[in-house]
Amino acid sequence: MGKSPEMEHPVKAFGWAARDTTGILSPFKFSRRSTGQHDVQLKVLYCGICHSDLHNAKNDWGFTQYPVVPGHEIVGVVTEVGDKVEKFKVGDKVGVGCLVGSCRECNSCNKDLENYCPKQILTYGAKDTDGTTTYGGFSDIMVVNEHFVIRWPENLPLDAGAPLMCAGITTYSPLRHYGLDKPGLHIGIVGLGGLGHVGVKFAKAFGAKVTVISTSINKKKEAIEKLGADSFLVSRNEEEMRVAAGTLDGIIDTVSAFHSLSPLLSLLKTDGKLIMVGAPNKPLEVPIFPDLLSGRKVVAGSLIGGLKETQEMIDFAAKHNVLPDVEIIPMDYVNTAMERLQKSDVKYRFVIDVKKTLRAE
Amino acid sequence: MGKSPEMEHPVKAFGWAARDTTGILSPFKFSRRSTGQHDVQLKVLYCGICHSDLHNAKNDWGFTQYPVVPGHEIVGVVTEVGDKVEKFKVGDKVGVGCLVGSCRECNSCNKDLENYCPKQILTYGAKDTDGTTTYGGFSDIMVVNEHFVIRWPENLPLDAGAPLMCAGITTYSPLRHYGLDKPGLHIGIVGLGGLGHVGVKFAKAFGAKVTVISTSINKKKEAIEKLGADSFLVSRNEEEMRVAAGTLDGIIDTVSAFHSLSPLLSLLKTDGKLIMVGAPNKPLEVPIFPDLLSGRKVVAGSLIGGLKETQEMIDFAAKHNVLPDVEIIPMDYVNTAMERLQKSDVKYRFVIDVKKTLRAE
Repeated sequence: MGKSPEMEHPVKAFGWAARDTTGILSPFKFSRRSTGQHDVQLKVLYCGICHSDLHNAKNDWGFTQYPVVPGHEIVGVVTEVGDKVEKFKVGDKVGVGCLVGSCRECNSCNKDLENYCPKQILTYGAKDTDGTTTYGGFSDIMVVNEHFVIRWPENLPLDAGAPLMCAGITTYSPLRHYGLDKPGLHIGIVGLGGLGHVGVKFAKAFGAKVTVISTSINKKKEAIEKLGADSFLVSRNEEEMRVAAGTLDGIIDTVSAFHSLSPLLSLLKTDGKLIMVGAPNKPLEVPIFPDLLSGRKVVAGSLIGGLKETQEMIDFAAKHNVLPDVEIIPMDYVNTAMERLQKSDVKYRFVIDVKKTLRAE
Repeated sequence: MGKSPEMEHPVKAFGWAARDTTGILSPFKFSRRSTGQHDVQLKVLYCGICHSDLHNAKNDWGFTQYPVVPGHEIVGVVTEVGDKVEKFKVGDKVGVGCLVGSCRECNSCNKDLENYCPKQILTYGAKDTDGTTTYGGFSDIMVVNEHFVIRWPENLPLDAGAPLMCAGITTYSPLRHYGLDKPGLHIGIVGLGGLGHVGVKFAKAFGAKVTVISTSINKKKEAIEKLGADSFLVSRNEEEMRVAAGTLDGIIDTVSAFHSLSPLLSLLKTDGKLIMVGAPNKPLEVPIFPDLLSGRKVVAGSLIGGLKETQEMIDFAAKHNVLPDVEIIPMDYVNTAMERLQKSDVKYRFVIDVKKTLRAE
């Protein structure tokens, strides 16, 4: 039988974990490995709350191993580095996202696409190479191979910048990969939550005209006045949708709920691309003909990004002032925050002030 | 009330038409316009039978206007040219495919993508600019704007080459457009009918390793020995499919019947592309997560090709000896051929010898 989470590694760690499918988080003592030759040890300063943290805490996807310490939008400061670490020194500000490991030798890894490596190691709830479980950023300390650590730009706020490590790269990567990063394009963003609101900001920073597409008109004013979107479409308004048909070069669809893709496909020009970054738990129906065939349209997916591209994204965000809108909360507010997140009652991302508010009991 | 098909134009024409949803074709007298300044008049020599001819004849898609003269895989010889025709002279061998008109000024037309022009005029069953109905290649004579006429290469057989005008461009265009034309790629072709068997030949000509994917093992020997495929997968054989997972760079799916895309998506590598060229009449289910997201996979469509690319395709076919396998039939065999086509009893395309066997009665 394996050792307990508290005893399996030499370095004491403390965080908040969910213990069962209620998803309720509570204080949790565990441990971290000692800093290996290629490792960076960091003190966690801030950690964003991603919708997938909620899914994992409640075992919505069926693969959660309890206890689970969520958190993969992590900003920290380096407290120790291994002998062979080249990129970091003690005191550096750094980011850690959804991945802490991959095989480093498959085709995907060789193309800097660790996010598509079949042996990728997720930041929490995954089996690490030594057989122990990974624990995320709702904790005081982390130890991560330097390859999976991002240099934090000088002028990028540590707190509001944290969600870039997941929400940021998730929307930046498809805009870049699918050629939707050219000035003058017309980009649609479906869903205005944690992902969508950052998607609007990246698309604007690339020089696009941006249309937000939402089921309700409630967010229109804010989308345009606060986030800088150029226009707003209510997907249930058939007349609005009809008028906008054939006007978009690409769409980033951030919605995880089951929804119809046909109205979205109709908004695309010939050769337009509908990129899914939400993860609906049921297949979606795609009308092949006429929707896909008649306009040579594309439905594709994208999942976070590789480490090289994540560094590029965070540098781009710093340069172009792309910053998530966040609500900073204390650690012990996390369960209330999770409840509010479930109701989409957040604009647009909760970030836990781990440094100031996580206290070992 | 408009004039009858026989009287509406000055040039007498004769063909075979379906008159109702039985789809049964019978001799039909109609007329063609006189050769306009930019028109080419041609005597039809050969015409392939495409599966969509069957769908149109039987009104499977609900928009057939009877009488309908099918046929859009046309090879002919020029008999007259208009004053301003630049590309052709009397006696030239030419091809006509699925389109005889488009607006020539929209974004698609400006990019040589007449096939995605919203005002495209199909070769048969469509409303022409003068308000009359277009009639296809199951007829003795055609009059077509030279922009929509293809120069036939010297060494390309007139009979077996005819299906390239639809089946050829339908598979060539997506291989080119989606970057699946690079030597050394591994390409899957789903369905081994009129489209699929030409797809195998084009993919081989591009230097790909080609795997045919079919629901039954019956066509394996022929796919490999006759068409030159490198391997064959039975999609219902779960073990075979499991072993082949993650091995294909791209798939051309020619199947119009409702089918599951998930097993096909699993065959793709990261960044692999599943291109639909068949036209299922119901939406297909696409598992967004994990299938699309976890490997940044693409599901996309493609519909025939533009005129410039069709010329390129036919020249490529001539140069690389890409030739459909055909069964040449007389005109009065067309109803039997349609019945056999319905049962997939053809290897792999019927071509009507119009020149020798269409007789005005």
